[in-house]
Amino acid sequence: MSAQADSSGLDVVAVGSAIVDVLATTSDEFIDDHRLVKGSMALVDLAESDALYGDLPPGVEASGGSAANTAAGLASLGGRAGFVGKVRLDQLGKVFAHDIAAVGVTTSLTEATEGPATARCLVMVTPDAERTMCTYLGAAGTLEADDIDEAFVASGAVVYAEGYLWDAPPAKAALVRAFDAAHAAGRRTAFTLSDPFCVDRFRDEFLTLIDDRVDLVFANRHELCSLFEVDDLDVAIDRAGALSTTWAVTCSEDGSVVFAGGERFDVPAVPVSNVVDTTGAGDLYASGFLFGYTRGWSFTRCGRLGSLAAAEVISHIGARPQIELAELIGAVED
Amino acid sequence: MSAQADSSGLDVVAVGSAIVDVLATTSDEFIDDHRLVKGSMALVDLAESDALYGDLPPGVEASGGSAANTAAGLASLGGRAGFVGKVRLDQLGKVFAHDIAAVGVTTSLTEATEGPATARCLVMVTPDAERTMCTYLGAAGTLEADDIDEAFVASGAVVYAEGYLWDAPPAKAALVRAFDAAHAAGRRTAFTLSDPFCVDRFRDEFLTLIDDRVDLVFANRHELCSLFEVDDLDVAIDRAGALSTTWAVTCSEDGSVVFAGGERFDVPAVPVSNVVDTTGAGDLYASGFLFGYTRGWSFTRCGRLGSLAAAEVISHIGARPQIELAELIGAVED
Repeated sequence: MSAQADSSGLDVVAVGSAIVDVLATTSDEFIDDHRLVKGSMALVDLAESDALYGDLPPGVEASGGSAANTAAGLASLGGRAGFVGKVRLDQLGKVFAHDIAAVGVTTSLTEATEGPATARCLVMVTPDAERTMCTYLGAAGTLEADDIDEAFVASGAVVYAEGYLWDAPPAKAALVRAFDAAHAAGRRTAFTLSDPFCVDRFRDEFLTLIDDRVDLVFANRHELCSLFEVDDLDVAIDRAGALSTTWAVTCSEDGSVVFAGGERFDVPAVPVSNVVDTTGAGDLYASGFLFGYTRGWSFTRCGRLGSLAAAEVISHIGARPQIELAELIGAVED
Repeated sequence: MSAQADSSGLDVVAVGSAIVDVLATTSDEFIDDHRLVKGSMALVDLAESDALYGDLPPGVEASGGSAANTAAGLASLGGRAGFVGKVRLDQLGKVFAHDIAAVGVTTSLTEATEGPATARCLVMVTPDAERTMCTYLGAAGTLEADDIDEAFVASGAVVYAEGYLWDAPPAKAALVRAFDAAHAAGRRTAFTLSDPFCVDRFRDEFLTLIDDRVDLVFANRHELCSLFEVDDLDVAIDRAGALSTTWAVTCSEDGSVVFAGGERFDVPAVPVSNVVDTTGAGDLYASGFLFGYTRGWSFTRCGRLGSLAAAEVISHIGARPQIELAELIGAVED
C-alpha cells in the first residue's frame, strides 16, 4: 500500500458530513441553560435545532463539517484534496458546494432534490474559545453506500473519514464501502474518532473498524481515553500502540503524540497568543498531518505542520483557514 | 415634531432592503477582471449573481442590508430599534429574520412564501479593506406600499430609510408611505443617500424627496458631491446647507461634518489601527448618530458616537457589530 498519490490522483479523499455551521458567541450560562455539554457535539432533530436557533444570538454562516474542513485545509496547503458527502440542493447546500469547490477541493457531492435539508451545526463559542455544537444532520445523514463513487474514492492515496458518520446508519455503510474500495486499490485509510461521546456510543464498533480497516487514526486525548475506557493517556497510548495501526493524538496546548509499531514521537504545540475559537482545531491538525503523510514526511514533521495549521484556525472565528496555509510549509522543513 | 420616542415607542424605525451578505476576500484583479467599480454597489439579476458567485473564493454569510445594519447597531447601543423589510421564507430569509430579532430589533418583516428568493449581496473585500458589492435584490425589491404598517412606522421617533430602495419602484412607494405616515404622526424622517451611483441614477428625485419629506440626511462626501454635481465638498455643503434639512456627512478618515440652519460642526474621526473591512461604516455611523439624535444630544456628540460605532465595524469582517456597542457610550459623555 502506498500513501503517495499517482500523478493523476488525489492526496486525500475525505468522506464526511456536508454541514454549514452557524457560529454565534454565547455566554457559559447559555450553554448551561440549554443543558448542553461544553466542548461536545450533540445530535438534534430539526425541531430541536430550530428551537435552539431561536434562542441563539446573531450568527454568521460558514461551511463546515469535520472531514470537509480537513479537505479544505489540505487544499489550502496546496495538496490535492477530494470530498465525498451529501447536501440537499437548497440555499445552504449551494453555499457548501460553492465553498468547498472554491478552495480547490475536487468533490463527489450528492445534491438531493428532495428529502431533508442540508445539515447545519449550531456552534456556540464561549468566552474561553471553547465550542459546543448541536448538529442537525439532515441530508448529510442520508449519505449511503450508493453515493460512494468507488473510482473517485480510490483516486486518493489516503481515504479519510470521520467518526461522526457512524451516527447515521446509511452513512456507516458508505464509509465501509469507501474504505474497502481504498484497500482494494492498494490505498491507505484514515479515521478520526471525532468526539468522546461519539466514541462512547460506538466503542466496540470503532475498535472493530480500526482493527479491520484503518491504517491511521486521529484522536484527541479525551477520545483516545474514552476508546479504551481509561483515565490515563499513557495507558491509553500503550493499549492503542498494541494494535497494528498508526495513531496521531492531539493534546491541545501540550501538542500531539504520534505512535506506531512501538515507536513514539512527541510533537510540541504551536503557541497561539489569542485563541478565539477552537472550532476546527482537530480537523486542521489532520490537514497538516495528512499533507506530510502523503509526501512521505517523518511523523514529527507531519505533526508539526498539523500543529501549525491548527494554530491558524483557532486564531479566528470559523473552522476553515483564512490564509493560504501553503505559507506555513516553509516553517516545518526538516 | 419630536425626535424623542414615547415611553411605549421606538427610537428609530428603519425601512430598507433585507439582505444576507456573502463576504469574501478577493484581489484587486478579481474586481477588475469582473468589470466591477471598486467601492460601489451594483445591482445584478439572479443569473449574474450566480455567475459571479461561481467565481468567488470561499465566503461567509452574515445578515446585512444598509438600513438593517443601522437598526442592528442602534439596538446594540441599547436603543429601541425597528425594521421594516421583506424576505422570502427560505433559508437565507430565516437567517435574516433570526439575526435582526436576536440583536433586539423589533421587526415588521414581510415573509413571502412565493416569488423571488431573499436578497443577497456579494461583498468582495480587497486588501485595502475596501468593499465592492453586487446585490441581487430578490424579495427585498418587492417591498411595496401595502407592506408598510403605518402604526408600526409611526411608533418610531425617527423613520429612517435607505436610498438603495429607490432602485425598486414598488419599494419607492413603500418609502414614501412610511415617510408620510411618520410626518402625519408628528415624527421625523431620515434618509441616507446610500451610494454615489445611486445618487447619480436618481438625483432629481432625491432632491425632491429631501425637499418635501426629509428632516435629516446621511451621506458620505462622494454622495453629497454627486447630489449637487460638484467636485468640491465645501461647495456641496454650501448648496446642501441652503435647504431646510439637517445633514450628517461622513468623510472617512477625516471624520464627519454636521450642518443645519447655517451652523456647521466638524467631528473628528476615531483612529482605527487595523481597518479590515469597511462594509457597514456609514450604516453604523448612522446608528450612533441616531442614538444621540433621539436623545436630544448635541450634533457633535451624535457625530462622535457615530464615529465610534463606525470604527468598531471596520475593524472586522462584516457589517454588524461584534461587541455590545453600548460599551462605547461612556466615551462620548459631554
